[in-house]
Amino acid sequence: MAEKKITREELSQMLSRGIFANWLGIALTGVDDDGITLAVKWREEFMVNAKLRYTHGGILATLIDIAGDYALAAKIGRPVPTVDLRIDYHRMAEPGDLTVKAGVVKLGRTISTAEAYVFDGEGNLLASGRGVYHSKTDG
Amino acid sequence: MAEKKITREELSQMLSRGIFANWLGIALTGVDDDGITLAVKWREEFMVNAKLRYTHGGILATLIDIAGDYALAAKIGRPVPTVDLRIDYHRMAEPGDLTVKAGVVKLGRTISTAEAYVFDGEGNLLASGRGVYHSKTDG
Amino acid sequence: MAEKKITREELSQMLSRGIFANWLGIALTGVDDDGITLAVKWREEFMVNAKLRYTHGGILATLIDIAGDYALAAKIGRPVPTVDLRIDYHRMAEPGDLTVKAGVVKLGRTISTAEAYVFDGEGNLLASGRGVYHSKTDG
Amino acid sequence: MAEKKITREELSQMLSRGIFANWLGIALTGVDDDGITLAVKWREEFMVNAKLRYTHGGILATLIDIAGDYALAAKIGRPVPTVDLRIDYHRMAEPGDLTVKAGVVKLGRTISTAEAYVFDGEGNLLASGRGVYHSKTDG
Repeated sequence: MAEKKITREELSQMLSRGIFANWLGIALTGVDDDGITLAVKWREEFMVNAKLRYTHGGILATLIDIAGDYALAAKIGRPVPTVDLRIDYHRMAEPGDLTVKAGVVKLGRTISTAEAYVFDGEGNLLASGRGVYHSKTDG
Repeated sequence: MAEKKITREELSQMLSRGIFANWLGIALTGVDDDGITLAVKWREEFMVNAKLRYTHGGILATLIDIAGDYALAAKIGRPVPTVDLRIDYHRMAEPGDLTVKAGVVKLGRTISTAEAYVFDGEGNLLASGRGVYHSKTDG
Repeated sequence: MAEKKITREELSQMLSRGIFANWLGIALTGVDDDGITLAVKWREEFMVNAKLRYTHGGILATLIDIAGDYALAAKIGRPVPTVDLRIDYHRMAEPGDLTVKAGVVKLGRTISTAEAYVFDGEGNLLASGRGVYHSKTDG
Repeated sequence: MAEKKITREELSQMLSRGIFANWLGIALTGVDDDGITLAVKWREEFMVNAKLRYTHGGILATLIDIAGDYALAAKIGRPVPTVDLRIDYHRMAEPGDLTVKAGVVKLGRTISTAEAYVFDGEGNLLASGRGVYHSKTDG
């Protein structure tokens, strides 16, 4: 699909209208030609349980989905529906804020692929993965 | 890995100790030889945004991860860490409670595969997918 | 996309025009409402190496791709391009002929999902997985 | 798992003992800290059919599996079994030789993740994906 200019401010506003994204405490902290960066504020509800205080893998999967989507949005002007999602878990996620980096692997006419990486505060890679998205224009 | 008997009551208690699982409003409603069934209470925070009121794909991914894990737990006595997760999105999820069904594809000595299906209140398939899990015994 | 009737004979002929499919020795042995069955004739070139005589995982991945595609072809009248493919390996594949069973998980208007299972001659599950396919009609 | 030195010559010899890898015409053309590069000689049997002369997606999946495995082998001293494989198809592969680049995403104690990219002779990205591998040492 055709690329469409969008400002960082517009992208940040789109993200801030996300209800689940807001619950997750996601903020856009970077956009450049390689992709986007998100900051995620940790909250107690992220934990698997009181004994295993790790952030749940479902949270990490969601962050990869959203980050991949916004890496595409930065190129095409809006977030798009996810076709499928694949997540690899690399390391247990100790309680704490997270950083997510995402970029576009392939911008296609109808289908696009993006990838994302989730890091903890010390830069350890916790999870990474890819989403495939419907990137067809409406017109 | 060796199978280990666990009662439905024990499985249900394990699930209820999950912090993020509780936030998601998950309850165990069925266990048999084919797998498990979960009921999920919808909440406002699940929505993508106020305009697209669909349940976020990250919620559906989390449900597939948890359901696959508990399908394994029903066989081996406890939930186990997820190695990787693959989700297919089939249909937009309108606001409403959800049902998740999951079963074991392959119970392996160190690695196992489970699959899960998420349905809306009318029985429409919303998403489905698989998780690969570390099923190694501690002993 | 709309379903389109196709006879078993037509499906079998489509498959027999496949060059790589023919090299793999694939034949259609069953079609019903649940999906299709393929028989695969083992050949020496399938092996990983002379010491590990297992059938290569790439062969099993190919069989899952083709079987999923033909499960869709049985519903929509022709094989369609693969968007993405996910394979789980369950057991080493000893030398010998294979059977593949595949069915449609979701027939969508533009995107469809199929799944397939590869078995050895004794009925052991060797690998299984899913493909996502472009199922858009041309018209 | 512990890293183990292996020379490029040893890696190349391991690859050349592969029966299916040899049929595919794969040769190791590069190894450095970032990963490995393979060259693949096109052959007629790769084609989907005489009309759609594209290289079959199963061939591309196999190349991604093997390249990811050898990116790991370059770090740990030997190829290892594949747990699962995920392939994204980006562009139809016209007849012609291929180049595959692969690197390690995460080298784990028991489970590792590698990714690979397949290019045509003009540098177009045809397919990419990831494999998860059993990287446990025997000792």
